[in-house]
Amino acid sequence: MNYDTMFQAALDELHRDGSYRYFAELERYSGRFPRAFHHGIGRDVTVWCSNDYLGMGQHPDVLAAVHKALDENGAGSGGTRNISGTNHYHVALEKELAALHGKESALLFNSGYLSNWVALGTLAARLKGCVVLSDALNHASMIEGIRHSRAEKRIFRHNDLDDLERHLKELPADTPKIIAFESVYSMDGDIAPIEEICDLADRYGAMTYLDEVHAVGMYGAQGGGIAQERGLEHRLTVIEGTLGKAYGVVGGYIAASTALCDFVRSFGSGFIFSTSLPPMVAAGVLASVRHLRQSSAERDGQKKAVALLRERLDRAHIPYLKTDTHIVPVMVRDATLCRTLSDELLKRFGHYLQPINYPTVPQGEERFRLTPGPLHTEEELDSLVEALSTLWKEHQLPLAA
Amino acid sequence: MNYDTMFQAALDELHRDGSYRYFAELERYSGRFPRAFHHGIGRDVTVWCSNDYLGMGQHPDVLAAVHKALDENGAGSGGTRNISGTNHYHVALEKELAALHGKESALLFNSGYLSNWVALGTLAARLKGCVVLSDALNHASMIEGIRHSRAEKRIFRHNDLDDLERHLKELPADTPKIIAFESVYSMDGDIAPIEEICDLADRYGAMTYLDEVHAVGMYGAQGGGIAQERGLEHRLTVIEGTLGKAYGVVGGYIAASTALCDFVRSFGSGFIFSTSLPPMVAAGVLASVRHLRQSSAERDGQKKAVALLRERLDRAHIPYLKTDTHIVPVMVRDATLCRTLSDELLKRFGHYLQPINYPTVPQGEERFRLTPGPLHTEEELDSLVEALSTLWKEHQLPLAA
Ligand SMILES: Cc1ncc(COP(=O)(O)O)c(C=O)c1O
Ligand SMILES: Cc1ncc(COP(=O)(O)O)c(C=O)c1O
Repeated sequence: MNYDTMFQAALDELHRDGSYRYFAELERYSGRFPRAFHHGIGRDVTVWCSNDYLGMGQHPDVLAAVHKALDENGAGSGGTRNISGTNHYHVALEKELAALHGKESALLFNSGYLSNWVALGTLAARLKGCVVLSDALNHASMIEGIRHSRAEKRIFRHNDLDDLERHLKELPADTPKIIAFESVYSMDGDIAPIEEICDLADRYGAMTYLDEVHAVGMYGAQGGGIAQERGLEHRLTVIEGTLGKAYGVVGGYIAASTALCDFVRSFGSGFIFSTSLPPMVAAGVLASVRHLRQSSAERDGQKKAVALLRERLDRAHIPYLKTDTHIVPVMVRDATLCRTLSDELLKRFGHYLQPINYPTVPQGEERFRLTPGPLHTEEELDSLVEALSTLWKEHQLPLAA
Repeated sequence: MNYDTMFQAALDELHRDGSYRYFAELERYSGRFPRAFHHGIGRDVTVWCSNDYLGMGQHPDVLAAVHKALDENGAGSGGTRNISGTNHYHVALEKELAALHGKESALLFNSGYLSNWVALGTLAARLKGCVVLSDALNHASMIEGIRHSRAEKRIFRHNDLDDLERHLKELPADTPKIIAFESVYSMDGDIAPIEEICDLADRYGAMTYLDEVHAVGMYGAQGGGIAQERGLEHRLTVIEGTLGKAYGVVGGYIAASTALCDFVRSFGSGFIFSTSLPPMVAAGVLASVRHLRQSSAERDGQKKAVALLRERLDRAHIPYLKTDTHIVPVMVRDATLCRTLSDELLKRFGHYLQPINYPTVPQGEERFRLTPGPLHTEEELDSLVEALSTLWKEHQLPLAA
């Protein structure tokens, strides 16, 4: 058996269809986000595709908290949560996240991916006969969690209440059910009808599991997400979020009832059998969450940048999806072209926009996913849109009306 | 449906059988490991159950590297590896880990758990018809990765070459096969017959996947693990390790051929769709790995502490498993007694030993898992063994011969 030959054959296919991924080796400059040194081209670039939406990764409070915890507690936790690896900051952060979402408890994971995978995997596997109703565009981490549970899964059409209800109707009243969905869908930037989904959940006795990964820190008076903005947090069974995007560090969590969190804590293999996050990470995140609970300046700056970018794109007739969120998808719809444009933007103009290709988006929906933030200047916005205009002309791409 | 009632019922069962887990809320003192402040009892304790085996979590090189990367690059990576989240330190660390194991490449994950789950899950799912031969005592992360792949799994008796060969013989020659096992089994502290397993793998055309989580940093001239110590690294297809135990921070990795790493990088959902580790974490780990490649002082100190502890336990006739590794399991074999002893060790004597109960070990094999390190002083060792002696007498527990 020549295994490497098999691996290589699969990789060759990716090369052929243009979806092979090249990673950009970067060094962001703390204090000068969104600027970064790009090792591939050997010079500075402006980053347009980061999920550190608000620049919290360089916020003085966050940096100070990390430095302090590092000095005081060292670089790692030294164990799993149960075996010497629960630090004071883990506990404080879980309390803060519960309070943020108005829930009894929260449970911390090493990533948002893990929080979805473990929580859904554990809940759906251990509630006898459980059926998961899953939005068609749910994130990979939810899909894999559900797959792992081996529970019955029913996929409802994206954001489609009728289709969801059709499935719910077909299930016996005494079957445990979880409706799993996102608030902000990260690639198209659209938002779920959360209230109506909760209404259906109530009517049919289902739990609701809401991924607010792209919304926490970003929406709601305290950054609690779309559910907070709409006053719906109490209606959701589980709110899941990440600490690696708007909060600027790394990690994930669920917020829910004490019984539910304790259940996942006690039975979730991916939670139990893994070294916990370093105390310094939990401390940095805690500072970030606290800051964004009482400051809206970052969110306001972010909204302003999005409005400005859209206005400039409109003026230049560059086609993009109009969304209700902070995500500005500029559609290219071709993997190879997306890569070519990305290369030119980078090498000729110093703008880093990663091509988003399959399997992150379906084939034929390749795009740039722009996330302008409070730290992008007007000059940078102008320079980007000028570069896009130039390339759109050179490649004779269709303009927006 | 009252879901919380169902969760609570399952938790009540854990309470009844004594396997409910209470987390100790700690603050390790950087610069004074293994001492920590224990929030539950409000005073300082000595930690005996950390997996920061060598105290690298407080090593000056590690701390300096984290501080520097934090100042220079900020607190987080800001994205998934593909979308703006590959930092210079990720790349440098992957090179270092490949070099450490004499492999072409390495691939970084947010935890050792994820590295096993994603790598085994991806390899076994995508090699058509793959069968995984899995040691009976494999870690949860491997078990879940194999489960996730839905590949056929055959469990061979722990470290049993005959049983492994029996399974191999039954499989067609052209069936892709992965033999998944550990070098150091963390709860019993025994070691796999790596060379003989590689011989069988060669004979039957199987890949070998070795989890060296409890061995990296600890064994081999450069800390490359048991395979390095035995000169066998080139014979293994994949070596997997953690960055959260002997290396003292957090994270995981695989080291293997470039084609294999690229395959997992390109198809592993849990790798692709998740925010990468903060640059500061990768920088800290890099310093730790580099240090332990050229320094044996920590490993020597660790071995000395183990020898001393065993000698003291022998003298006091406290029963423990004699292993070839750094792990000293003191067997209690009862969940409730284990917890009682742990409580008394903590509250009366200031020693923190977490009871290890089901499902980490089988029911009836509850224990303390002691990991003495280079930072434990002789006085601390004496004080611990004295405390154990006292409790052994008070509870009239059987002594060793
Ligand atoms: C909707 C959604 N959920 C979960 C995740 C995973 O979060 P994390 O990056 O913290 O692993 C992501 C992206 O990475 C996401 O887009
Ligand atoms: C054998 C083994 N493999 C993998 C892991 C997971 O590594 P990590 O703690 O980095 O998630 C552990 C322990 O946690 C382990 O004991």
